[in-house]
Amino acid sequence: MSTHDTTRHPLSPTPRTTLTRSKERGATDRAALDEVLDAGLLCHLGLLLGGSPVVLPTIYGRVGDTLYLHGSTGAGNMRAAIDHEISIAVTHVDGLVYARAAMHFSMNYRSAVIRGRAVLVTDAAERDEALRVIVEHSAPGAWDRVRPPDRKEMAATMVLAVDLTEASVKVRAGGPRDDSGDIDNGGVWAGVLPLRQVWGEPIPSADLEAGIEVPDDVVARVTPTAVPVS
Amino acid sequence: MSTHDTTRHPLSPTPRTTLTRSKERGATDRAALDEVLDAGLLCHLGLLLGGSPVVLPTIYGRVGDTLYLHGSTGAGNMRAAIDHEISIAVTHVDGLVYARAAMHFSMNYRSAVIRGRAVLVTDAAERDEALRVIVEHSAPGAWDRVRPPDRKEMAATMVLAVDLTEASVKVRAGGPRDDSGDIDNGGVWAGVLPLRQVWGEPIPSADLEAGIEVPDDVVARVTPTAVPVS
Repeated sequence: MSTHDTTRHPLSPTPRTTLTRSKERGATDRAALDEVLDAGLLCHLGLLLGGSPVVLPTIYGRVGDTLYLHGSTGAGNMRAAIDHEISIAVTHVDGLVYARAAMHFSMNYRSAVIRGRAVLVTDAAERDEALRVIVEHSAPGAWDRVRPPDRKEMAATMVLAVDLTEASVKVRAGGPRDDSGDIDNGGVWAGVLPLRQVWGEPIPSADLEAGIEVPDDVVARVTPTAVPVS
Repeated sequence: MSTHDTTRHPLSPTPRTTLTRSKERGATDRAALDEVLDAGLLCHLGLLLGGSPVVLPTIYGRVGDTLYLHGSTGAGNMRAAIDHEISIAVTHVDGLVYARAAMHFSMNYRSAVIRGRAVLVTDAAERDEALRVIVEHSAPGAWDRVRPPDRKEMAATMVLAVDLTEASVKVRAGGPRDDSGDIDNGGVWAGVLPLRQVWGEPIPSADLEAGIEVPDDVVARVTPTAVPVS
């Protein structure tokens, strides 16, 4: 029933798992990690605040082996992460697994859990690139058609980098795995109810002037389904 | 751009916020907390493992002022939470906010962040009820038509309880909040691209015998839309 007690990705879920990039399995796992991260909209950042863990949702971006986070320089929470160990999780729920027995209910999901040290990025070019990547991660194709950060905005923004070396990926897919006794007994429906995220029709801002068309990068994102049938 | 630097729920996001249930605002906030929690499918649990934070996705259930988690008794990660401070976040992404300036991009979201101590539940009746609530949270209406946990399954399952007293709720909704200069300059589309989760058509398990209909609780859940238009 727990999302983490069923099928596991080859990467073992032991504490402090390290992706060994030199091994073949490492390459597979690394591709799986990138796939989970690149498909995510937000991550959950775990850090220590006053000695206790706190989990905060935030957006992110990735460049190669580095994950970037950003926040206001006034945000005490994120500031507390600098030069400390943190953890970042990105999870996609793909469906709910209905089983014949309560304890075999499960979820289909893809998740990545990263552990590492948050480092404050101070290099101006890297900060610029990190912010571009974070915006493009959320809104692919938008960066080039909007106003870039100005000096004041940059001064108010803190960028953190986390190395992706230490990470684990877990995936569960497929139907329920019921006990043979429950299957033999029969009479109970079992299967998967798939879940997915869909983008709806864009809603123009109330203060948008007339004559501005929805940009191609926004149009391209709208999920091509969703006509009510009833 | 950060999911936490824009509109805030009345509950202030200061560290270790406590919901004061005796105040009127406390009641409002408490209702908002329940709403975010009850609408969620999974939470992200932050705990300390070997002195460093780890964030793990897991399912949960709620009874009044108590949030329940469960795991295998063999799961070292969750065991490490017992009698320790933890944090739990539940986040819903409702849309992406496209602004005229990169630093004003944002997300519409509802999130709850809980901090508290994880307590091992040992009372048999409370353990039973917690597992029922966790399964019903994921799959409403399913518990009564599936096989309940047997003695062996119960022995292999650990249930944790977390008090909901210390929690904050944050909500961002609505369009972009651009600088007046960028609005005056014009020429850039701004608005919201809504995002939602939809349940697809149920997929019967490959080992399901013939003649078993999809139960009403599963049918009722399928999102009544989703016919491809192209």
